[in-house]
Amino acid sequence: MPSQNPSTVKALIFDVFGTLVDWRKSIAREAERQLAPKMIELDWLAFADDWRAEYQPAMEEVRTGRIPFSKLDQLHRRNLDIVLSSHGLDGLDENTRRELNLAWHRLDAWPDVANGLAALRASFLLAPCSNGNISLMVDLARRNGFHWDAILGAEFARDYKPKPAVYLSAADAFDLLPGEVMMVAAHSSDLKAAANCGLSTCFVSRPDEFGAGIGETVPAGSVDISVSNLLELAQRLGCS
Amino acid sequence: MPSQNPSTVKALIFDVFGTLVDWRKSIAREAERQLAPKMIELDWLAFADDWRAEYQPAMEEVRTGRIPFSKLDQLHRRNLDIVLSSHGLDGLDENTRRELNLAWHRLDAWPDVANGLAALRASFLLAPCSNGNISLMVDLARRNGFHWDAILGAEFARDYKPKPAVYLSAADAFDLLPGEVMMVAAHSSDLKAAANCGLSTCFVSRPDEFGAGIGETVPAGSVDISVSNLLELAQRLGCS
Repeated sequence: MPSQNPSTVKALIFDVFGTLVDWRKSIAREAERQLAPKMIELDWLAFADDWRAEYQPAMEEVRTGRIPFSKLDQLHRRNLDIVLSSHGLDGLDENTRRELNLAWHRLDAWPDVANGLAALRASFLLAPCSNGNISLMVDLARRNGFHWDAILGAEFARDYKPKPAVYLSAADAFDLLPGEVMMVAAHSSDLKAAANCGLSTCFVSRPDEFGAGIGETVPAGSVDISVSNLLELAQRLGCS
Repeated sequence: MPSQNPSTVKALIFDVFGTLVDWRKSIAREAERQLAPKMIELDWLAFADDWRAEYQPAMEEVRTGRIPFSKLDQLHRRNLDIVLSSHGLDGLDENTRRELNLAWHRLDAWPDVANGLAALRASFLLAPCSNGNISLMVDLARRNGFHWDAILGAEFARDYKPKPAVYLSAADAFDLLPGEVMMVAAHSSDLKAAANCGLSTCFVSRPDEFGAGIGETVPAGSVDISVSNLLELAQRLGCS
């Protein structure tokens, strides 16, 4: 039995990287598209993994207060410079770096997401609650056909998940109690942090996030609902 | 000739009360719907005007730093209590006050707005840049069929227009320069403040905002574009 009654849920907020979009294959594709014409040869999926590996350490600088809040685009750029250097690409020009950094604005959604969100929107308020910045969320929404009610998350809270302010500021923006908001994510750590703030939780299985068969398939802790995709979530919540 | 070339504009941000929605007739209708069954008789349009008259003084408390940032819903509630008292309605119960305060979430758009925004959305990023809070903007969008890319404005900036932070934070959220953003409003004072921040400006005539024939029909200062409604704006910007 769920620990919170989903019938009290009025808004769904979503993790984005990994949960809604396939960042790994999209970043590999964008890196190849931009760098291969410059006669650069890399293992593009490994490059995506290396870039993503710098993600948590960079946000930790903000969470701990060592640097002021910076948009994820800025952290991605700092991380890109690190990863290019580790691949012996210190000579890559500024314009290419700037354009390559926008690869994160061009991620493709998993196939269930656009239709799943459209079905869920009939009954719930919807917002991303991502560590990605607003312009990045806006571009992903335009690219993939998501219709959000608002863009909430890190840039609105001016801190990064899993800090409580990110989840709680999303509930507050909708004038809802934490228990009236369900956090939807493919990562147990994100859901645990949301649950600690009193939010309802939904685990979405994304078994291929980090490569074929390398992703969370079952939640590591207790969640209110566990589904294999957003169409199943819509069905479970009576939206389809 | 416009002082800024509209062809550089990538996002349009909108004033909402008066520019997109007819707050006066909507508030009068909601007040009558909720209070008339309680045998309260008022001049409902005058009641709307009286409530709105407390709007600027309440925000000025935040702008000057005399009180911390509070969502407009909270300021509206404070103002409602003042106006009820001045109409001899001190005895009105808490539940009715709370429900009546949500009248601002149920405002109807001027007839050109939904179609005008839909046409503009094909070529521009769109966001409200209102003093209304996020939940209020979300409810107006759902009610009137607006599709925003993001909800920007006072709650995001944590200050009230015409403070520069409100306009500049909207441009920054979209990763745009001020001159790449056009502020659309029916109030010359709002446009003047936006122009002072470097934004492009569009005046929309709403001649009946404060009652038949009582609204701004021409901009008091220099603007980049002046139109009679959003369909005309879409046409002028090549969107229809």
